[in-house]
Amino acid sequence: MNRPNKRRQTPEQVSELTTNRLSVYLRCLNELDAAAVETISSQALAEQFQLNAAQIRKDLAYFGEFGVRGVGYYVKDLRRHLRQILGLDQHLRVVIMGAGNLGMALADYPGFRQEGFEIAALFDAANEKIGHESRAGVPIYDIKELRRLARRERLDIAVIAVPAPQAQPVVDQVIQAGIKAILNFSPGSLKVPAEIKLKSVDLTVSLESLSFFLAQHEAPRA
Amino acid sequence: MNRPNKRRQTPEQVSELTTNRLSVYLRCLNELDAAAVETISSQALAEQFQLNAAQIRKDLAYFGEFGVRGVGYYVKDLRRHLRQILGLDQHLRVVIMGAGNLGMALADYPGFRQEGFEIAALFDAANEKIGHESRAGVPIYDIKELRRLARRERLDIAVIAVPAPQAQPVVDQVIQAGIKAILNFSPGSLKVPAEIKLKSVDLTVSLESLSFFLAQHEAPRA
Repeated sequence: MNRPNKRRQTPEQVSELTTNRLSVYLRCLNELDAAAVETISSQALAEQFQLNAAQIRKDLAYFGEFGVRGVGYYVKDLRRHLRQILGLDQHLRVVIMGAGNLGMALADYPGFRQEGFEIAALFDAANEKIGHESRAGVPIYDIKELRRLARRERLDIAVIAVPAPQAQPVVDQVIQAGIKAILNFSPGSLKVPAEIKLKSVDLTVSLESLSFFLAQHEAPRA
Repeated sequence: MNRPNKRRQTPEQVSELTTNRLSVYLRCLNELDAAAVETISSQALAEQFQLNAAQIRKDLAYFGEFGVRGVGYYVKDLRRHLRQILGLDQHLRVVIMGAGNLGMALADYPGFRQEGFEIAALFDAANEKIGHESRAGVPIYDIKELRRLARRERLDIAVIAVPAPQAQPVVDQVIQAGIKAILNFSPGSLKVPAEIKLKSVDLTVSLESLSFFLAQHEAPRA
């Protein structure tokens, strides 16, 4: 806590691995808060959720001094701070490009709403889908309507859930509509201008952590 | 590289955050290999893919000495080692529980196949789905058939893609069928015995890293 050469990083320098960990900490704090836990030390937080206490302290130190000596962290306070740092207090509006299986699944994904994101619309080019809605009631619009909708309403994030060959043209349309942040579930790399934030999600990563477990723990196969 | 008190951790102690990073490194090495890059330093790897060079060296040091002084890493070698560490050389067989939007999307997710996972089957309880298959040809079986199929064929990992209320009973069936590793996309916590590896995926984490970016970079809203 009082190392002399501790440097405070600016948000610019914070890596995505760090923000991902902040999200994980937030999920833990949500659980603790729901269980009416009021304070927790970095050590106890690490033990309960199988995290690294030193890493927790280091990650949080980027953003301020949240720990209180002899107490640890106040759960509600730290949760509020993390939501603020992650921009979750801004009620961001999300559109999903592609009303196929993945798009429809994402439109109704409970976690998004829970953390304060609003799924404003799905977009697709297929006539038979346009005008319908997801099970949770997210409307499906013609992709041609994207620019018009973006002009009328604030749209913060676009999720790309179209097949690989359509991904780049759809991303280009999203950027033309003025959306600055893109979450891509489509495989393959996409080109975006420097001022656009593109994050690609690779679901294989999760499967690989199980694969790692099986490789280390399972008996050799017959 | 030659700190005297460096400790080699056993795989038991390696955190999921570490294995997740190994997956990320593997993806980078795949790209480098595809681009015919033969060697790379941790520094260059970090710069090219916006990673942390010290973290790369530390993560890899858990598993052996892969770096060569004055050269860095041999891309093909390190890629092969990482695939081995992550168990990807074992051709694991995956079943997906739930043939709704998410299950169907995951069944055809290109990344799974690409890294050597085989999506063996989808399972659902809805009569109208049973007997059909996903676009990529993954057959949908009656969930009652899971135990019989698991007895006949090796099934390594079950992916849970059913609505929250069905998640626990489905997980119980998966465990009874002898599957040891579970990837859960359903919200809420699940109970599994200690010998079962359960990983829950929270797609909200990715959206939150964009939210963080917008909170730091966007002009204040009118």
